[in-house]
Amino acid sequence: MEILEKAKNLKLNMKIVRKILVDFIRKETTRFGLKKGVIGVSGGVDSAVSAYLSAEALGPENVLGVIMPYKTSSPDSIEDAKLVISNLGIKSEFVDITPMCDPYFEKFPDMDKIRRGNVMARMRMIVLYDLSAREQALVIGTSNKTELLLGYGTLYGDMASAINPLGDLYKTQVWQLAEELGVPRKIIDKKPTADLWIGQTDEDELGLSYKVVDKLLYFMIDERKTDDELVELGFDRKTIERIKLMVQRNQFKRRPPIIAKISYRTINIDFRYARDWGS
Amino acid sequence: MEILEKAKNLKLNMKIVRKILVDFIRKETTRFGLKKGVIGVSGGVDSAVSAYLSAEALGPENVLGVIMPYKTSSPDSIEDAKLVISNLGIKSEFVDITPMCDPYFEKFPDMDKIRRGNVMARMRMIVLYDLSAREQALVIGTSNKTELLLGYGTLYGDMASAINPLGDLYKTQVWQLAEELGVPRKIIDKKPTADLWIGQTDEDELGLSYKVVDKLLYFMIDERKTDDELVELGFDRKTIERIKLMVQRNQFKRRPPIIAKISYRTINIDFRYARDWGS
Repeated sequence: MEILEKAKNLKLNMKIVRKILVDFIRKETTRFGLKKGVIGVSGGVDSAVSAYLSAEALGPENVLGVIMPYKTSSPDSIEDAKLVISNLGIKSEFVDITPMCDPYFEKFPDMDKIRRGNVMARMRMIVLYDLSAREQALVIGTSNKTELLLGYGTLYGDMASAINPLGDLYKTQVWQLAEELGVPRKIIDKKPTADLWIGQTDEDELGLSYKVVDKLLYFMIDERKTDDELVELGFDRKTIERIKLMVQRNQFKRRPPIIAKISYRTINIDFRYARDWGS
Repeated sequence: MEILEKAKNLKLNMKIVRKILVDFIRKETTRFGLKKGVIGVSGGVDSAVSAYLSAEALGPENVLGVIMPYKTSSPDSIEDAKLVISNLGIKSEFVDITPMCDPYFEKFPDMDKIRRGNVMARMRMIVLYDLSAREQALVIGTSNKTELLLGYGTLYGDMASAINPLGDLYKTQVWQLAEELGVPRKIIDKKPTADLWIGQTDEDELGLSYKVVDKLLYFMIDERKTDDELVELGFDRKTIERIKLMVQRNQFKRRPPIIAKISYRTINIDFRYARDWGS
């Protein structure tokens, strides 16, 4: 199939990517006047890669890996998270979010699993940001480009971070980088899941494999191909439309709140600076 | 004093501002394909003004005001929040965040009041966003320009919203707008506080009155005055430097996470669209 040839499986030179991302974490952290990072370690490959990069950039003694299960979280995920932490020799904290979530779930017993999952993701954000204040550390992100583009993440939850080394790598590229970094094979090989309910897998929910959707996104976003060109490359027109709509509809998750313009200089309209302006 | 003359107490034509902001809320909500709004109503003037504007824009039946006290929240604040809700005839929900916060506070008993306050602010965000999902509504923001510029708010907490009608009005302008809207006098007249601990007031914490800091910010940001010009206008050089540093150091709270650039098109670097792109 032509796609495979053209996109070359989205292969990047992962030695160079590793160097760029390690430098990024080190530079951005010190630029904020800090030397430490905090990462939510889920047992999945994204947070593992973020943790490996951060340990290399800041030294393992300056990285805190936080394991934050809910009572329905898979015990395997917790084991894999512990494996990442022990392999790297980073510091760790274990915070069960069940006692924080359950009083709310009990108040609204009709809540569906999506709402529950979003509450959990945001509860983890609370813990990470609080511990980052305790540690005088930055929260280091774990959202990859596929998730960010598709909006497959919780706004102000797992999408929240100070700096995100993975945000410009598609999921399939995160897997490649994981190999380069020596992330344990079992973490690379397991089915990706947000682990928000039992049996959840990303690819089932999406109805597409990451292999396919990453290539589609690559051609659509990075190569700016038209719909007709995408069809010619072998993608299904319905899928193209569905994915494009997801990317557009989730743009709000990638941007700050919209402010009504009144004055000469409105925040994020004509009062615009980089995030680290002044640091 | 010359400042008073030049800045005219930051007076705006509040009839026009009211119309702009009501239109903004209506237009942005329908643009997202929705018709409802959710607002955290604290009993303070900012959330009161947001609620009044929203009720006017969307109709009281389409606005949900949420009261979310912690056990140390002032009973007066709760009373004032109820007053706003009953005056407007909007729908309401009462969620005590104490049972969600306390398990975490008990796990880390050494937590200082700043960290505790941030946990509470973020817990309220969780409730608001969850209820906005239940209601198919937008979270309508309540952060004013003074707070946003000084970083006097919690990132991913009270600073989180879908659309923010107040983000371009200084606190003193919010008071003016509150008068125009008929917000109860006792809410306009009370000392501003984030109510994160007993006895807290914004102006004590800032060491400046809103009247002074708003004018300073107006000249500094909107009028782009230099330090020397600001001194000439009557501001103290130390205060100028302190406030400018606050504005710069808190820029990160106004921007999305920094993503390491790898590809041709990186989110928020060269993949940039408005928040409502595609809606």
